[in-house]
Amino acid sequence: MNKSMTPISRREILIGGAIVVAVAGFPLPAAAGQPKPATKENAMTTTIAVAKPAQIRLVQRSPAYWRVTIDNPPINVMGPEMVRQFQDVIAAIEADEQVRVVVFDSAVDDYFLNHSDFTAKLEDLTGMPDGPTGLPPWPDFLVRLTRAPVASIALIRGRATGNGSEITLACDMSFASREKAIMSQWEVGVGMVAGGGPMARLPQLIGRNRALEVLLGSDDIRGDQAEAYGYVNRALPDAELDAFVVAFAARISKFDKWAIAHTKRLVNTSLPPDVELGAGWDACIASLGRPAAQDGIKALMNRGFHKPGDAENRLGYYLGQIPR
Amino acid sequence: MNKSMTPISRREILIGGAIVVAVAGFPLPAAAGQPKPATKENAMTTTIAVAKPAQIRLVQRSPAYWRVTIDNPPINVMGPEMVRQFQDVIAAIEADEQVRVVVFDSAVDDYFLNHSDFTAKLEDLTGMPDGPTGLPPWPDFLVRLTRAPVASIALIRGRATGNGSEITLACDMSFASREKAIMSQWEVGVGMVAGGGPMARLPQLIGRNRALEVLLGSDDIRGDQAEAYGYVNRALPDAELDAFVVAFAARISKFDKWAIAHTKRLVNTSLPPDVELGAGWDACIASLGRPAAQDGIKALMNRGFHKPGDAENRLGYYLGQIPR
Amino acid sequence: MNKSMTPISRREILIGGAIVVAVAGFPLPAAAGQPKPATKENAMTTTIAVAKPAQIRLVQRSPAYWRVTIDNPPINVMGPEMVRQFQDVIAAIEADEQVRVVVFDSAVDDYFLNHSDFTAKLEDLTGMPDGPTGLPPWPDFLVRLTRAPVASIALIRGRATGNGSEITLACDMSFASREKAIMSQWEVGVGMVAGGGPMARLPQLIGRNRALEVLLGSDDIRGDQAEAYGYVNRALPDAELDAFVVAFAARISKFDKWAIAHTKRLVNTSLPPDVELGAGWDACIASLGRPAAQDGIKALMNRGFHKPGDAENRLGYYLGQIPR
Repeated sequence: MNKSMTPISRREILIGGAIVVAVAGFPLPAAAGQPKPATKENAMTTTIAVAKPAQIRLVQRSPAYWRVTIDNPPINVMGPEMVRQFQDVIAAIEADEQVRVVVFDSAVDDYFLNHSDFTAKLEDLTGMPDGPTGLPPWPDFLVRLTRAPVASIALIRGRATGNGSEITLACDMSFASREKAIMSQWEVGVGMVAGGGPMARLPQLIGRNRALEVLLGSDDIRGDQAEAYGYVNRALPDAELDAFVVAFAARISKFDKWAIAHTKRLVNTSLPPDVELGAGWDACIASLGRPAAQDGIKALMNRGFHKPGDAENRLGYYLGQIPR
Repeated sequence: MNKSMTPISRREILIGGAIVVAVAGFPLPAAAGQPKPATKENAMTTTIAVAKPAQIRLVQRSPAYWRVTIDNPPINVMGPEMVRQFQDVIAAIEADEQVRVVVFDSAVDDYFLNHSDFTAKLEDLTGMPDGPTGLPPWPDFLVRLTRAPVASIALIRGRATGNGSEITLACDMSFASREKAIMSQWEVGVGMVAGGGPMARLPQLIGRNRALEVLLGSDDIRGDQAEAYGYVNRALPDAELDAFVVAFAARISKFDKWAIAHTKRLVNTSLPPDVELGAGWDACIASLGRPAAQDGIKALMNRGFHKPGDAENRLGYYLGQIPR
Repeated sequence: MNKSMTPISRREILIGGAIVVAVAGFPLPAAAGQPKPATKENAMTTTIAVAKPAQIRLVQRSPAYWRVTIDNPPINVMGPEMVRQFQDVIAAIEADEQVRVVVFDSAVDDYFLNHSDFTAKLEDLTGMPDGPTGLPPWPDFLVRLTRAPVASIALIRGRATGNGSEITLACDMSFASREKAIMSQWEVGVGMVAGGGPMARLPQLIGRNRALEVLLGSDDIRGDQAEAYGYVNRALPDAELDAFVVAFAARISKFDKWAIAHTKRLVNTSLPPDVELGAGWDACIASLGRPAAQDGIKALMNRGFHKPGDAENRLGYYLGQIPR
């Protein structure tokens, strides 16, 4: 995980569990380079960072262009620790005055960002303090990312199941591998309600009818279909995806931050109220306490869910097969 | 109309003019199987049901998966009696605790659901009592269908003109025959305003510019175009449409009703206020009292409108031809 | 500019700087044919009209079907005088009782309507009195066009950069040349915020993610892409575009004005509040006072911007090249 041995020399700073890497030759922004005020919460996350490996890497390609790479092999599930690290990431983005573009991608083959970690204790997630918006940490992160005064881009290769779809919807833009991206809001298929706001976001993006097809159908949506529905901005040939996103991010990173921030601020008047993401989170937690979801997840586990293999690769199919 | 002689044995119950059919082997839900409380209104609709044939059939493929089939040959127009039967259908859907998916289709070749019956007395429609939402019966039905805690699917083969388009927009999802589906909001072309809410629903679904093209152009929209605009979820080859919808409905019918209902409830926060459908209805009724609409409908009638033939088949074309 | 020598005999009336032309054989509507009340403002614009050539022509193809042609060669930029003429155009549309369809097009090769005239004094624009909506004249025009009780259509051939995109978004419908249309909200790329409301309009039309791609990417969007995103209704082969729009406009021009107006009124409930266009305008004016925009425009000018040539033709590319 430590990248200081790579040919490009970079400085690395731990913020919570996330490693902030400054590429040599660029000054490190104050928010990342200087220690954060030693509040109780920061101290706590720093302690955790020592004990737990980073599941997210924040690399500054330049002061204006950051890359956030999700890296929790083998299947990029999101547990409480990753949620905590996303909190650190968004705090760093908000505090920095030079960052203009943030690209989210994955270091794990076949997974952009996957469903939640069902082997973690639910209390470790529900016991985390609310974020600055007053929402629990995951919807808090998503809302803050949507409102951050920078351009955010999801580069989607592999599965974007549940949380991965939700971070895509929170980003300003998304570009997906035509061959390798799979979007999925699979929750209803296992007896759950999605926790990160797709009920609020998808209808505005792709229309109520296609939003309900995605949400109630709970099936896998390949790159082409996601593009046709407007679920992602564009699906590109896998071989061209990285170069396209790098060029697009580099382009925007040269534009004026004030103009980016104020344009985005005015676009954001069309957002659903943040409270809708809170309502979705509450419904998600409530669904997890019901036998339907418990039985559904258990049945999936019995078929190989939650580890590399067919049940993860073809989750949409398996959701239609589990006995009820 | 009576299906008890078909190979599959089914129980049939009259609710208003609608026949509720229970496939043998599945218990009949309480709401359908038991007599409704003998209120004055129910008694009235039951009486009417004896005198008038069912124009809608409600078949329970399973307790969780219902099919509502529109069957008013030869051209599937909607008069006051059909509106009354739609009221019974939605009451049955709302009252049942097991239904999770309802598919709307047609038994009449070339017509999914057509325009209103202009040979009926307008008073028979406007004299009906408001529904539980406080709206007149047709917009009341549409609003309640949109808010019902089940997944609703329009299977569109043939013309969905006016009312047929409006029920499509009220359903959660829609799948159309690529060769045989024709969407149409034809009202402006004949001097009317649409009565079932497309002004409220279409802009959110397909964008204001395409909504106004559909509404002000009043032309026929074929399956491919409807899919490209997002007017329907997908257009499929006619030979594949039924199997696709059956598989999709069967899939959802196995998912947890609580998860379906709460996911849909949260999606529905993006709906326009119900009152907008009331305003549309009022404008529709007002338009019918004006000479422009009276003359337009009369001119169409003179060209063969309202019976099988070219004026119905190519309504969009004929709307451009009637003298003004 | 005077068209009275063309084979078709037409009457021409000056309204402000705009020439209103009545095709012979059709009565000229009162609002256009009679002098407007001699308020101070009208008198002023009439005086200006004598001194300055018309940059917009309003031709009445019939009492119900008007054509507004933008004609400010060589590159169809919009300065204060054109804004004043758009005010006259919308006043004529609002005052007339027979017009049902207005088509906006261009008489200048390669440009539908371009960015603002940066050689004009900003004070000439900001010093103009607010329009009837209480908004400054350009957003006032756009809001009134959107709410006018007629069908408005943008026929887009050539560049629709900034103002051209904004008038497209204010029209009810838009049809673009597949080969020759270029949509562009280029403002962020030069350090500005757009002034005519795309932040309010684009997210509803094409989804937040693609709206932000257009706005923050500031790149040229060709006809095909604009159609795929729903930015325009349709992109048509250039050779077919005019005939398509003429036929479509002629079709609607025969429909009942009351039905058009009330249908559009109900569609307009989905519009963002007008105040959002005011907020966008304020941000635009603020951006023009900042060094980033001043430097950006100057750098573009040094590369040939604001006159016919490569910097205008490939503005998206040049925005990525100017030094920062």
